[in-house]
Amino acid sequence: MAMQQPVLALDIGGTKLAVAMVTPDGNSHGFLSEPTHKQRGPEQVIAHLFEMGQRSIAAAGVGNPGAVGISCGGPLDSTAGILTHPLHLPGWINIPIVDLTQSEFGVPAVVENDATAAVRGEHRFGAARGHDTALYLTISTGVGGGSVVDGRLHRGAAGNGGEFGHVTVQRGGRPCECGRRGCLEAYVSGTNIARRAREALSSSEVPSILRESTPVRAQDVAAAAASGDTLARDIWDETTALLGQAITDLVNIFEPNIVVLGGGVTRSGAQLLDPVRHIVRTTAMPPAAAHVDVVLAALGDEVCVVGAGALALDLMEATRV
Amino acid sequence: MAMQQPVLALDIGGTKLAVAMVTPDGNSHGFLSEPTHKQRGPEQVIAHLFEMGQRSIAAAGVGNPGAVGISCGGPLDSTAGILTHPLHLPGWINIPIVDLTQSEFGVPAVVENDATAAVRGEHRFGAARGHDTALYLTISTGVGGGSVVDGRLHRGAAGNGGEFGHVTVQRGGRPCECGRRGCLEAYVSGTNIARRAREALSSSEVPSILRESTPVRAQDVAAAAASGDTLARDIWDETTALLGQAITDLVNIFEPNIVVLGGGVTRSGAQLLDPVRHIVRTTAMPPAAAHVDVVLAALGDEVCVVGAGALALDLMEATRV
Repeated sequence: MAMQQPVLALDIGGTKLAVAMVTPDGNSHGFLSEPTHKQRGPEQVIAHLFEMGQRSIAAAGVGNPGAVGISCGGPLDSTAGILTHPLHLPGWINIPIVDLTQSEFGVPAVVENDATAAVRGEHRFGAARGHDTALYLTISTGVGGGSVVDGRLHRGAAGNGGEFGHVTVQRGGRPCECGRRGCLEAYVSGTNIARRAREALSSSEVPSILRESTPVRAQDVAAAAASGDTLARDIWDETTALLGQAITDLVNIFEPNIVVLGGGVTRSGAQLLDPVRHIVRTTAMPPAAAHVDVVLAALGDEVCVVGAGALALDLMEATRV
Repeated sequence: MAMQQPVLALDIGGTKLAVAMVTPDGNSHGFLSEPTHKQRGPEQVIAHLFEMGQRSIAAAGVGNPGAVGISCGGPLDSTAGILTHPLHLPGWINIPIVDLTQSEFGVPAVVENDATAAVRGEHRFGAARGHDTALYLTISTGVGGGSVVDGRLHRGAAGNGGEFGHVTVQRGGRPCECGRRGCLEAYVSGTNIARRAREALSSSEVPSILRESTPVRAQDVAAAAASGDTLARDIWDETTALLGQAITDLVNIFEPNIVVLGGGVTRSGAQLLDPVRHIVRTTAMPPAAAHVDVVLAALGDEVCVVGAGALALDLMEATRV
């Protein structure tokens, strides 16, 4: 019975809070997602998060949690259990989230960078299951990443795992929020796909159905490219070319067994995956190319919650031994 | 007494064979380096290598080896103990080097990619000692690499560790031997530093002391740059800028504790290290930058031999338990 104890998973996003109970088979129960209202400040947001957690425990009906896993954007200090200054939550400084959570729920808790949680979720329950070395890229508002190396979650010296959005794809290229130029994120995040399309629209007279979208979003670009719109197709082709180049670099660097792509932009499916996979297969070093596959994430919108659950299950199992 | 048993280390280079006995303190004894004469073919070269090994055992006077470690350029299959088709030894196809070595010396043997051996050497005995996550780049005829992630040597799905020479530094740039364009190796290997200088000399009329060097080598470029030669300085500055960019990418990707630079080009010392370190410190993501140092290798020209010794010591210790 103890082996089957579920865990509570909490995901603190800039827009949404998500919570669920996760059972050791990786299924989520009592999933809830509600607006963060981050302007209310950490005290009220965390009170709301905990209240959602209590509701989820009651609604799930799978018993009491044996541990709590929390995923949040970085930077955070996983070892100390502190949100040091998450970029998506301005004004949250040194929040002792693990202590607060342990007090609320009376069980051990763990916090990790959301991309680190996601790779652990995909590794334990999703598309990377059974693979020794797995990379995960989330292509969303920004571009994040995480890795499992030789079966173990890699946290890195500063605890943020891998910042796969901040590898150079175009030397001297577009300015990136990190301060450098030409980073992957500056091209292929949803935000920057949309921005590049808007720039192309305003700097050319080429007819485009995107001129009817206000404001243009990344999914509009994907849809217009799929329908044959020339301007959108140019933006999309550059997106997949640069993403394919960066993933080829990562494949040469890690020789992973699998690369998993998640996040909102990957809802475009084969339109994104197929050209990226083709670039990796044909341009990575042959031994690395022969051993890797590039796939879409299996856990969809619940990846961070299930990932936080996987981390809590890891913690519970480690504590038990 | 058993704890102090030494190992035999063999390094199979395209130009030179190197062998030594390595004691558990990391010191080498009876070091020998002789021309490979690769045109003689695998049978004769391996016979010569083994004969050198026997001479080294006799000359070192530290006792009989408990294991043998072999380092060689890839591709090779470390698990099977086979040199599949090392690029620097054309015509060597599927050589069962581990079986041959075990028959010759009567003790367990292990083979690894030379850069993998080097990172293990630097991690066990050199500049990366005590660091959880360490990257090693060899900047030599080509550019290779290896990593220790969270205390363990990372071999990768295909067993070649990390091909750090094949990350893109200039999209659409110089053709690389791997078939892509713009790889780090296509710019900063010793071969390509010299080639870029020769191209600059032939495409301009700028006076340069390099016009007196025939043929221009990478060390001539470093020396001329240090003496203030404008053309050489431009080549050198581009070299350090691109190397700094690639290492910054790697630091963002891994969040390592240390990056160790070895290989012939690093004999230029601070002239290479200082600008590279400055780029990493000022342009990597701040948490990653705060936790990393970039240093020169400690083991010098013996790094592959000592690395092969470290692998043999690992094997001996694992076998003992």
